[in-house]
Amino acid sequence: MPETAPLRSAFYISDSTAITAETLGHSLLTQFEGVHFRQLRIPFVNSAEKAREAASRIEQAAREDGSRPIVFTTLVEPELNRILRGSPGFCISLFETFIAPLEAELGVKSTHTIGRSHSFNDNSDYQDRLEAINFALAHDDGVTMSGLDEANVILVGVSRCGKTPTSIYLAMQFGIKAANYPLIPEDFERGHLPDGLERFRQRMFGLTIQPERLQKIRNERRPNSRYAALDNCRYEVAEAERLMRREGIRWLDSSTKSIEEISTTIMQEIQLERNSF
Amino acid sequence: MPETAPLRSAFYISDSTAITAETLGHSLLTQFEGVHFRQLRIPFVNSAEKAREAASRIEQAAREDGSRPIVFTTLVEPELNRILRGSPGFCISLFETFIAPLEAELGVKSTHTIGRSHSFNDNSDYQDRLEAINFALAHDDGVTMSGLDEANVILVGVSRCGKTPTSIYLAMQFGIKAANYPLIPEDFERGHLPDGLERFRQRMFGLTIQPERLQKIRNERRPNSRYAALDNCRYEVAEAERLMRREGIRWLDSSTKSIEEISTTIMQEIQLERNSF
Repeated sequence: MPETAPLRSAFYISDSTAITAETLGHSLLTQFEGVHFRQLRIPFVNSAEKAREAASRIEQAAREDGSRPIVFTTLVEPELNRILRGSPGFCISLFETFIAPLEAELGVKSTHTIGRSHSFNDNSDYQDRLEAINFALAHDDGVTMSGLDEANVILVGVSRCGKTPTSIYLAMQFGIKAANYPLIPEDFERGHLPDGLERFRQRMFGLTIQPERLQKIRNERRPNSRYAALDNCRYEVAEAERLMRREGIRWLDSSTKSIEEISTTIMQEIQLERNSF
Repeated sequence: MPETAPLRSAFYISDSTAITAETLGHSLLTQFEGVHFRQLRIPFVNSAEKAREAASRIEQAAREDGSRPIVFTTLVEPELNRILRGSPGFCISLFETFIAPLEAELGVKSTHTIGRSHSFNDNSDYQDRLEAINFALAHDDGVTMSGLDEANVILVGVSRCGKTPTSIYLAMQFGIKAANYPLIPEDFERGHLPDGLERFRQRMFGLTIQPERLQKIRNERRPNSRYAALDNCRYEVAEAERLMRREGIRWLDSSTKSIEEISTTIMQEIQLERNSF
């Protein structure tokens, strides 16, 4: 980004966490490469007073930047949206834009309830998600085989290929119970999966990684170690792929994929549905 | 939800993970209480062939449901959107709706690059996020005090009040380095924080919880234990609050808040900005 790139402020404003407004707004802004955005989230704007406070922060940013801030809102209350539209911001009201057409299509009035999407629900959905997070932590890095029959998926692969963050993301975002199990030299020498693990083969999914990238990641953790040496990374990756091929375990290369892409691909490949929202 | 609630299919379709489309779409649908939605995500629709496959899934759902499916897309390619609009779905194209007005406002053409938002970037942002996840795991449950000076926030509170999922969410969603430290009977008897921890007081944030809710959560983990007994939960919560008050640590009650709400509130209270997208 050159220093001379124009600066624009972008606000994400909601009566709840503003995570939805931020997710879509940020996604839209990534389409504009030549502009540098200063992004600010203003959550819990659930009264006229807080909306006026937000409006004056927008006004201040407009003065400082010398340009109109972009404002993404998921406010349900028309009155609060009206207050923000009175500011100098360029307002994109996500709910106002789509709620009316959806009401017409569904033939149902919306409830106009604030903060439904990321709010606390003492329901089984939310409990499932917390339970999945606990499950991922309890079944990280092959800590235990007990309870593995509850796993929706068991990720396997060499150390540092992305199993742990993927397991946690699957739990956090989708309520999926993901265990993960490292493939280590003992597995390669034995030539097959550990005995307790074999019966779960159908639920396994492998991650592999380019040896050069693995070397870089391991080297940050244990600089100049045998563990991080390129020839060792090459050996482990080749052996892990050989083992997975022999065992009929599907896998993907995580080297150039985000946690979101890895998780989404796994769900698609083994037809996992999300367990919670 | 009564059995007779009308059923509608809802599709979230994108050239990338479809997480953005799903986040906003789901958020809009939570505003319609009387309708039961069967929600389906179709990611990686990045060719005309895949768009046609998606269109026929929409068509099939329309036939089965006897109603038009609602289709949320974040497709960048106009041609792929066009193919989906040829299906019987009620299409809400999030990018098409907002990209043109944003181009006009910013005076810049969008890059029309697919999958920018949740894709892999070998940049410092993404590395920061992975590092934050590793940090949260390494500093969970007071495992170690080493490296605590790197923490953006240190969560404290009694066992099972929500510290671990919150720490991980802060890391995963915002790239924030969050450690967490349990307050235990020894801390209550001593009457102040452990010595190594006191110098981080400014970065601490407390979670508390209603004793009745704590009992329920602990009882699932260790049924009928002293640990889960209501009088013990009452004692621990009261002592933890007393300790936090004495030490000048701000706190919130997690009992009726989601992980997203807790995290957002903490960031607002101690003015933490996100470190990564």
